[in-house]
Formats: sequence, C-alpha cells, structure tokens
Amino acid sequence: MGIRAAVAGASGYAGGELLRVLAGHPEFEIGAVTAGSNAGSRLGEHQPHLRSLADRVLDPTSPATLAGHDVVFFALPHGESGPIARLLGDETLVVDCGADFRLHDPDEWEFFYNSPHAGTWPYGLPELPGQREVLRRTNRIAVPGCYPTSVALALFPAMMAHIAEPDVVVVAASGTSGAGKGLKTSLLGSEVMGSVSAYGVGGVHRHTPEMEQSLSAVAGEPVTVSFTPTLAPMSRGILATCTAKARPGLTADRLRQAYAAAYDGEPFVELLPEGTWPATAMTLGANTALVQVALDERAGRIVAVAAIDNLAKGTAGGAVQSANLALGLPETVGLTTIGVAP
Amino acid sequence: MGIRAAVAGASGYAGGELLRVLAGHPEFEIGAVTAGSNAGSRLGEHQPHLRSLADRVLDPTSPATLAGHDVVFFALPHGESGPIARLLGDETLVVDCGADFRLHDPDEWEFFYNSPHAGTWPYGLPELPGQREVLRRTNRIAVPGCYPTSVALALFPAMMAHIAEPDVVVVAASGTSGAGKGLKTSLLGSEVMGSVSAYGVGGVHRHTPEMEQSLSAVAGEPVTVSFTPTLAPMSRGILATCTAKARPGLTADRLRQAYAAAYDGEPFVELLPEGTWPATAMTLGANTALVQVALDERAGRIVAVAAIDNLAKGTAGGAVQSANLALGLPETVGLTTIGVAP
Amino acid sequence: MGIRAAVAGASGYAGGELLRVLAGHPEFEIGAVTAGSNAGSRLGEHQPHLRSLADRVLDPTSPATLAGHDVVFFALPHGESGPIARLLGDETLVVDCGADFRLHDPDEWEFFYNSPHAGTWPYGLPELPGQREVLRRTNRIAVPGCYPTSVALALFPAMMAHIAEPDVVVVAASGTSGAGKGLKTSLLGSEVMGSVSAYGVGGVHRHTPEMEQSLSAVAGEPVTVSFTPTLAPMSRGILATCTAKARPGLTADRLRQAYAAAYDGEPFVELLPEGTWPATAMTLGANTALVQVALDERAGRIVAVAAIDNLAKGTAGGAVQSANLALGLPETVGLTTIGVAP
Amino acid sequence: MGIRAAVAGASGYAGGELLRVLAGHPEFEIGAVTAGSNAGSRLGEHQPHLRSLADRVLDPTSPATLAGHDVVFFALPHGESGPIARLLGDETLVVDCGADFRLHDPDEWEFFYNSPHAGTWPYGLPELPGQREVLRRTNRIAVPGCYPTSVALALFPAMMAHIAEPDVVVVAASGTSGAGKGLKTSLLGSEVMGSVSAYGVGGVHRHTPEMEQSLSAVAGEPVTVSFTPTLAPMSRGILATCTAKARPGLTADRLRQAYAAAYDGEPFVELLPEGTWPATAMTLGANTALVQVALDERAGRIVAVAAIDNLAKGTAGGAVQSANLALGLPETVGLTTIGVAP
Repeated sequence: MGIRAAVAGASGYAGGELLRVLAGHPEFEIGAVTAGSNAGSRLGEHQPHLRSLADRVLDPTSPATLAGHDVVFFALPHGESGPIARLLGDETLVVDCGADFRLHDPDEWEFFYNSPHAGTWPYGLPELPGQREVLRRTNRIAVPGCYPTSVALALFPAMMAHIAEPDVVVVAASGTSGAGKGLKTSLLGSEVMGSVSAYGVGGVHRHTPEMEQSLSAVAGEPVTVSFTPTLAPMSRGILATCTAKARPGLTADRLRQAYAAAYDGEPFVELLPEGTWPATAMTLGANTALVQVALDERAGRIVAVAAIDNLAKGTAGGAVQSANLALGLPETVGLTTIGVAP
Repeated sequence: MGIRAAVAGASGYAGGELLRVLAGHPEFEIGAVTAGSNAGSRLGEHQPHLRSLADRVLDPTSPATLAGHDVVFFALPHGESGPIARLLGDETLVVDCGADFRLHDPDEWEFFYNSPHAGTWPYGLPELPGQREVLRRTNRIAVPGCYPTSVALALFPAMMAHIAEPDVVVVAASGTSGAGKGLKTSLLGSEVMGSVSAYGVGGVHRHTPEMEQSLSAVAGEPVTVSFTPTLAPMSRGILATCTAKARPGLTADRLRQAYAAAYDGEPFVELLPEGTWPATAMTLGANTALVQVALDERAGRIVAVAAIDNLAKGTAGGAVQSANLALGLPETVGLTTIGVAP
Repeated sequence: MGIRAAVAGASGYAGGELLRVLAGHPEFEIGAVTAGSNAGSRLGEHQPHLRSLADRVLDPTSPATLAGHDVVFFALPHGESGPIARLLGDETLVVDCGADFRLHDPDEWEFFYNSPHAGTWPYGLPELPGQREVLRRTNRIAVPGCYPTSVALALFPAMMAHIAEPDVVVVAASGTSGAGKGLKTSLLGSEVMGSVSAYGVGGVHRHTPEMEQSLSAVAGEPVTVSFTPTLAPMSRGILATCTAKARPGLTADRLRQAYAAAYDGEPFVELLPEGTWPATAMTLGANTALVQVALDERAGRIVAVAAIDNLAKGTAGGAVQSANLALGLPETVGLTTIGVAP
Repeated sequence: MGIRAAVAGASGYAGGELLRVLAGHPEFEIGAVTAGSNAGSRLGEHQPHLRSLADRVLDPTSPATLAGHDVVFFALPHGESGPIARLLGDETLVVDCGADFRLHDPDEWEFFYNSPHAGTWPYGLPELPGQREVLRRTNRIAVPGCYPTSVALALFPAMMAHIAEPDVVVVAASGTSGAGKGLKTSLLGSEVMGSVSAYGVGGVHRHTPEMEQSLSAVAGEPVTVSFTPTLAPMSRGILATCTAKARPGLTADRLRQAYAAAYDGEPFVELLPEGTWPATAMTLGANTALVQVALDERAGRIVAVAAIDNLAKGTAGGAVQSANLALGLPETVGLTTIGVAP
C-alpha cells in the first residue's frame, strides 16, 4: 500500500504538475483529486496529458473530500488553503503550494496580500542551511514561490558567506505557466509569442518579501531585494539574474568556493562548470536548479544566475522533495534531475 | 532622383533590415548591395522576404563597389568598416552599424574588442541631449549597439535629472537575431525555443563600455553599468530592465516628470501611460522605443524598462533616423512607429 | 483631404491590423473606430502597438457612428455586419472582413453558419480570373476568409488549367491570431507554445464551402475540398498544403507553366524559384502570398503550398487591396510586399 | 547487474534522448557512449541536460568501443550503422534508430538513399499487427522513422479494416529537433521561430517509401502515400494529418469501431474521446501517441490525426519499447505515458 496523496486544485497548472510527479513516484498512490468550479468533470478534460488519470472525476475541494489521506497537496489560490488545512489532523502531512503560510511577518503579508495572515509553516526549500532537518520533523510545509526558489538558490551561498552586500537586484524571466490558467488577454498565445514583457515592476510583486525573508535569514541581517519579473515566450521556466555588490576584497576564486561549498552534494542543484551558463530548457520537467556565478570586477558586483522549471523545482517537484523528507523517504525518490531537452 | 544608398553586409540580419527599411523609404534609391563570402549570389537566396530586391546580385564589399553613393550603410563584423570607410570621400555619408567607431576611449576599445581603435564618430542616438544637432552636421555616424540603445533610452532621463546614483544594473533579454546569422549550435531553433538563457555574464559583454559612455556623458560623472544579457525565444526584440538607486528624497512624481520632460515631443520614444509596461512585440518592425519607469520605494530604486526591436530602432531604423538628420531630411521620413502586432 | 475610412471592430486582431495598414496608407484618413463591449475605452488599451492612434476613443458600432465615411471596414463576428451594412448608402464603399456575404449558396451558408443568409457580395480576391474587373465596379466587397485566400491562391492556377482532378485535400497550419482575441483556455500561451494541434477536423470548418466555391468557379465543375486546419505556435501566418490528383499526362513543366502564367505580373503573389518553399515568416506584416508547386510523380499528385500572413493578405491587406480597386486607386498603394523577417 | 546498453551517436538529439530514457529505466545500465567528431569530449558539453551523465567522456564510435554490451542503440547518420552492426555478435541486441535496415525493397532504398541496400531488420513498431511477436524473437531492430511512426499509427487501423482506399495524403508538421543538430541557416532560431515552412515537397522525402511499406503490408495491397512534411516553431513534436477516401458505405460508427478495436489495450496509443483532437505538447517527453479520426461525409474521406513526440515515441521511446520486448522485459518498463505539459 502506497502513501495516499490528495491534490486540491487539480485542474490548474500546479495541480497538474503535482499529479504528473506523483504518478511517476513509486511510493505514492493518488487519492482524491479536487477542484473548485471544475468539480464534477473528468480530469482528462483539463489535463489531457495525464493519460493514466484521465477518467478520474474531480471532487469538490473540501475538508471532507481531502480527509483520510496521508498527504494533502494544495494548489489553490492564496487564501483558500488555510481554512481547509485547519480541519485536517496532525496525522496528515499538508503541503501548500500557495502563499498562505510562507511569510513570518504578518505586516508584510497583509501589505502584499491584503488579507489576514494565516500563520507560518516550515519553508519547503531543503537546500537552505538547516532546513532539511526542519522538514524532516514537520507535518506542515509551505512550498516556496517559484521566483523565490530561483532567487534563494542563486544567492544564498553569497549571503551565507557574507561576501555580498545586502542590497540585491533581481530580474527574472518566467514562462507563462507561472501566471496560471486564468483567462486574461495578456496571456493569450497571440500576445505572448514573440514577446518579452515586464509586469509587476517597482517592488510590488508579492514574491518580493519572501525573497527578502529567505536571504535575510541566511545573511543574518536585513537584505533588500529590488525584484522585476518579466514574461518570456515559453510555457515553462524561470531564469533569475541576481546581482549584489561584492564586499571589498572578494576574489573570483573565493566566490566560486562559496558556491561550490554550498552546493557540494546537493542532489538537485548543479553549479555549472565555469564558462557555461544556465538555460531554462535544460531543466524542463526536472527537479533541477542550474546555478552559475561570476564576479564582475569592473562593476564590483556578484552576478548569480539560476534556471529552474517553475512548475517542477519551482512548485510541484519542490513540494514532493520536501514531502519526501517529511515522510521519511529518501529525498530524491520519484524526482528526476534530467530535463526534457532539446 | 533619389538619394543613392549602398548597403554593405547585405546578406546578414542587420543588412537585410536596412534594405527592408530603405525599400520603404520615399527618398532613397538602393544602389550597391554587397557581401563577403556570399558575393556573387542572388540577394533572394539570403533574404527571401525582400521580394522587390530578390534578383539583385551581391557585389563584393570593397571601396570600389561602394563608391559613388550618397550614403553607405555598413552592416559588417567589427573591424571591417574602418579600412573601407577611410577610402570613401567626405561627400559620402557613412553610417556604420558596427561597433568600430562608437567608443571614445581607445583603452576601453582595445580591452573589449582586442584590436586597435579606429576612431570615434558621432553617436547615432538623436534622443540624447544635444545629439540631434550633432547629427545634422556630420557625414559619419556610429550607430549605437542594440542593447546600448535600449539602455540609454531607459536611463538617460534619470541620469540627466541627477535623480539616480551612477551605479546601474541592467538585465536585458534579446531575441536571437541580435546574435546574428552565424552558425552556432546554441542558436539552433531546437536549442532556443522554450528556453531563456544567460550569456556574457560578469561585465564581459562588449556593449558595456558603450552604455557607460552614454550615461556618463549625460550624468556628467562616471556611471558604472553591471550588464547581463539573456537570450529569449523570439527572433526580434530587446527588453532592458535597468535599475539604479534613487537619490535621497526622490518622489514618484518627480521621477515621472523627468521622463515626461525628456521624451516630450520625441517621435520615436513613448513613455507609456502609468500602469502599463513595455512588451517587445509592440515594437516589431517599428522604429519605436517603449519606456516605462517606476520608483520602488521599498528598495529605494528607480526601475526603468525599455522595449525596442533590436533590428529596427536598435539597428537599421536607428541608422536611417540618424541618416535622415545628416541628409537634411525630416527625421521621421520612411520610418514607422507602429509595430506589427500581435 | 483623404478618403475617410471607418473601422468597425477596432479592438480585435483584424480591426487592429486594418488600422495598422490604413495608418500607413497615403490616401486614407482614419475616421470612426468602433467596438462592441469595448466602446468608450481608449484604443491604446486594446492595441498598444498603434501608437499614433492610441488616444482615439472607441465609439459604439452602429449605423450612426459609421455614417459619413467614404469607406467602412467591418471586422465583426459573423452576423453583425449585415444589419448595419443595409443602412449605409450606396455612396459608401463597404468592405466586410467577416463571412456574411461570401457564400452564394444559402443552403451552404445556413448549414455551416446556422443562421439566415444575408446575401452575396463581390469576392475580394483580385487574383482570381476576372475578379479584378468586378472589384473595380463595386461598392460592396466580401473579403475572403484567411484560409480560403491561401487555398485559392495555391490551387486556382491548377484548376483553371484543368490539370488537377476536382477532389482536393488541404491541410493548413495557422497562427493563433486567426482564432481571434476571445478568451479560451486552448488559446492561452501556455497551451499553444511548443504545440501543434488539430481542430475542426472532418469537413466541419466553416471555410470549407468558401474554398469549394472559389475553386469550382475557376474549374468550371464542382470541386470537393477536404480541409483540416491545425494551430501552430506562432501569432501570425498560414501555410496551406494543398494536393489534388494530376490529370493523366501532366508533366512538371506543364504544371509550372500553368502557375507562371497565372501569376505573371501579379504584384502580391510570388511563385517561388524552383527548389525553394514558402515559409510564413517571410510574409509577416506584408500583403504577400508565396506559392510553390510540385508534381509528385510517384503518387500522381500536384502539391501546391501557399504562405500568407493571415491578418495581412489573409484579412486586412487583402481588404485594402480590394478597396484600392473599388476606389479607383492603384491596387498596390499603401501595401508592402516585404515581410518583417527574420 | 543491469542490462548493459551502449549508445552510438550520443552527442546528437536522438542519442541524447536515448540516454535520457535509458537513465530513467530501471533495468538498464549505461555503458559506452560514443560519437564521431565529438569523441574525446565530455558528454555534458553536448547534452547539458543529462546531468547524471555529464562527466562521461565520449568514445569513438567503433566495433571495439561498442563490443561487450547486451544492447547497442545506434543513433547515427544513415549508412553508418550497417558496417558496425555486422561486427557485433548475435548475442548482442542491436537497435538502429537510423534508416539503414527499414526498407524491404532494395530499389526503393537505392532510389531514396542513393547508396547500396544493407538489408532489412524487423520493424520496431509493436502496435502493427503481429509485430509484437516478431519483436519478441529478434536480436536486430530497425526503429521506424519519426514521421512513419505517426503515419502508421494514424492509418493502419483503417487500412487493416479495409475501409479506406489505398491512396493516402499525409501532411505532417514536425518540430525542429527532427532535422537534427547539424548547422544550417534554415534551422537557426531566428529563422524558425514564428514560422511554418514546407520542405521536401513532391514525394521526395525519404520517409515516404517506409510509410507505404507499413501501410501496404497491413492493407494487403499496394498503398500510395503523398507525403508533405512541414517544419513548425517548436523543438519537439509531430502532428500528422492523414486522409484517404472512405470505401463506399462507411459510417462514422464503423470507422470509430475500427480504431477502437485496433487500439484496445495498447499501452502507448490513445484513441482520444470523441470531439477532442491531438496536440503535440501533450506527448512531450512521453512514449505516447494520441490518435483521433473523423469521417468527412461531405468529401467522402477518412481524416486521421496522430500526435507524438518525434524524439520519444518517434525515436528513443519507440526504440526502448521494442528493446524491452526483444529482451523479454515488460513492454512498458521505463517508459512514461504522461507528457510534460503545459
């Protein structure tokens, strides 16, 4: 008998990717698949690629349909997981891919999300210092946002080594699946193909405080992030370009050592060989982050770049990685590191 | 009789775009079209979209084939335009889309291009302060690089108004045509589709000193640029995201006024209405730059974004705009501001 | 004073392309721009690429707002142009980009469109035999559908020369703008990028009877078309691959002669040099059709391929080409033949 | 100890996909990885997505390096596998992803490939009638071409049921990886993005006789195929639209029954629910073919459409599926049916 897993929000992109990963996972058995307005319809109508699950009927998302599972994954709009999670017992591992339980600071939450703070759960990024141990002992996990995953992985080694000033600039390009499956003119194929566009400029993107929270914790001092997201003409992928002033005296060797040390033995993060740079396509469908870093000696800046698949390592893969830890499974089970390329 | 124009390097992407613009320009008559290794073949083999010019045969690029024109446009690899330009008389307007004559500082040139400095010509960006008058009185024009065009337009109003610190971070996404038509595995469609990748990271891209030169001149003090280019899955377009620390006390209103003042009446730069952000597809094939700016009060940063078509305003359109000025024509003649969208 | 032109349906893709073409046309002056549910808003909200028209406010689409123009272009959902057209006087040229007035046979109309037949107007495809003269003497024009334009141009020379059997198979790939700006999950960028899909299979696409009508008229006998449309990951473009059994004894030379004769002197159709094949990108934004044909001697079939920009030659460019004729202007004025490539 | 598998041609796209599939296969152990001109370099230089294999060094492709494996997969240019295969013993399973051993008729081979015929091996398409049993008893497998896989799966049920005339028209769209990793201007991202183009038109594509061979064998009479390939702006995927005249009296129900019967229980082919049509993205990275069929009663034609990933079910997935059979493993082991979507 496998570990019974439910997915709430199964008709969206994050939910579909959770199901794709779970269907290939040797330890999980897929239980309830639920949805909001799509409840009652076949999963295959919404996720035609999930062939083996196509005839499942979507249940309504509710405590009743989600009860009785060993793990419940939430892929819901923010604000919706809290009320349901509260009704699930401690014996159930709850993994929330939404934002509700990511931020520590209620003021930040309320400022950016304009709603009451639901609380804070352990943050599902095992690569952060000490976090793997935390995740092994929890039954509640807040999966990081896709952008914050890429930014934390690009920059925490520099912050941990105290070689970067705590004033960071991030410009990231995301594929359109990061914006979800909602119907907006700006997300039509005719609009996005052949085009890169900016949005959420000026420090207003909701992922900003989450980035600051992770990096500040590692740095041991407040880190400020200026974050600009852009939309690129691809379905999946995030490329985050992150830069911070180098502390005086930093050398390229020392910089590389900091990253090599941070990622030595990490199964899902690869510090690329010198001279090569990340491309998002290399991570497609894989729970992989590709990281590279350079010292711009002219400008006195560290430039770190990370590539992930926003739905995989950025959402569903990361969620399963953390769930593996919380369930006492090997961290890598059921997760591939090889992207579908070209 | 029109103004006779020659295009050197007509089988490449920049040369093809020059011919597209010139073919639609009411004052120009297309004379010699030349190439290097492709000399002797039909233009239509290399530029099948240029239907009205398809049967032209490519001459070899040389002073002899380029002589006798009113204007010669160079779209050659760097290092190749200098020797030929020297042999063209003062009565010929020479417009170089290559890098050879852009930089003032021979040391910067030699560091980044690893070859002797050929000299400096007036910089073909009429929107820069005072530059329009310079271009009206020259017979030699160095067309800016595509990335530097986008960065100068995004940031010079802030630099001119002394509201930004002179330490700039730029991350720009470019379509693949900016990398030219040379055969490299990394430029194959199979590699670039569905992928955003970084390259030239760490202050090593050759356009960096050009950006610093323009912005420093406007700021009246040395400006440092940390520049990271990325490659996006589209043929054309640059989106440059540029950020600098705001000087103390800057308000969003003051910031917007600086930009509104700088671009008031500019025919080819549009400061977008508040709340809307540039998308490169809106500029496709047009000599247009779309600019927007925001004050990130949290991070204390100005964030300015510009979108252009790298081959149009970023190369061929910009070249013709400057040539119009040098030839005493209306600046806007033969140039569209409406992109081909969606 | 220019010819005053109104565009009804100006917030959609076809309407936007009409405005793009009209704005670059030396003889037209843009009058009313109207919309349905978007009436009252700025054009720039919907068509940010139309910079010079951005501040126009959309009027409601009605006989009152459209009256008083020399030309009215309709870019409306089918069924909406008829009632308004009837109220516009004979002194107004009415050019309908919708389907309402394309079909002769009321039964075909009713079967495919499930609504009463509004009538039949001269068909706006000047390249068809004799059609140019018809268009010079009309004040009502039914612009062909985008697919039927490509198919008629690919096949009418073969049908006219009686070298093909009247039983045609067409498979065409279209960019997503052909499906319009309506919000459907299947048109989201996340769904269409990286994917080619079939739809409307089995002879059910509404453009089928229109193809049969054109080809039958040229052939002088009933022509049957099996038409399968597919959706390709690009914003614009149609590539129509069309095949019919060759009549006995047909040679490749005779085939090529038929096409060369049909397109000799045509300004907007290019029969490509032997050995080269159409690519849609070569036609982007241009009123151009690229055509090539081959004789498959093994299978005994003529294979003809045409590439157009569905919004340009396939809609707005074709509309203006026909309007030019009806207004006594040179057929080619205001229309480019050079695509924006690469 | 796993089954030791070698991959010859490991630096190309087919070789990379073989390695991706083999790396996820529980029964295989990857032995030699070989290349031609890339021998001596790290695999990671050529296949950066294959993280776990990145440090493998490519051996030269030769009988010596390939000897001593249980299975050898060839992903070589045609003509290169024959001489090496002859030197591998009968105890080695040889699976050739190239064309050398696909065709029965030496004249067809010589006409289309312009080289001497090497012989014929069992055809690696287990879904064809009786073929599964053949593959269980062979030590040599000719993996079908990617287009012929899609066409055979789209049409053999109709041919087997004798409900279609033996005169078939196929138009297929392929992603660019099908054209390989060779450096050609026409395959540059700048050329292929935003464009669908035709090539190999007129019955000259080398996959044509292979399609005819498969369909003729099933039909029990000679089947003629008119095949037109097109290139679509995506890295992976084939959508094949296939049509043939229906035999008199065919009904839509009878047609569907023929397909339902042919694919009942097939693990890797899905006959889609009525009213839905294949999209290539649904098969990305999966060994899946999606098939749908309709009866066009107007035109009297069967229209069948199949979508596959050209590198997966069309090459490497299909190769492993057949190898599983030949090795006595469960047919489905190591192969996913769930595509990476969106």
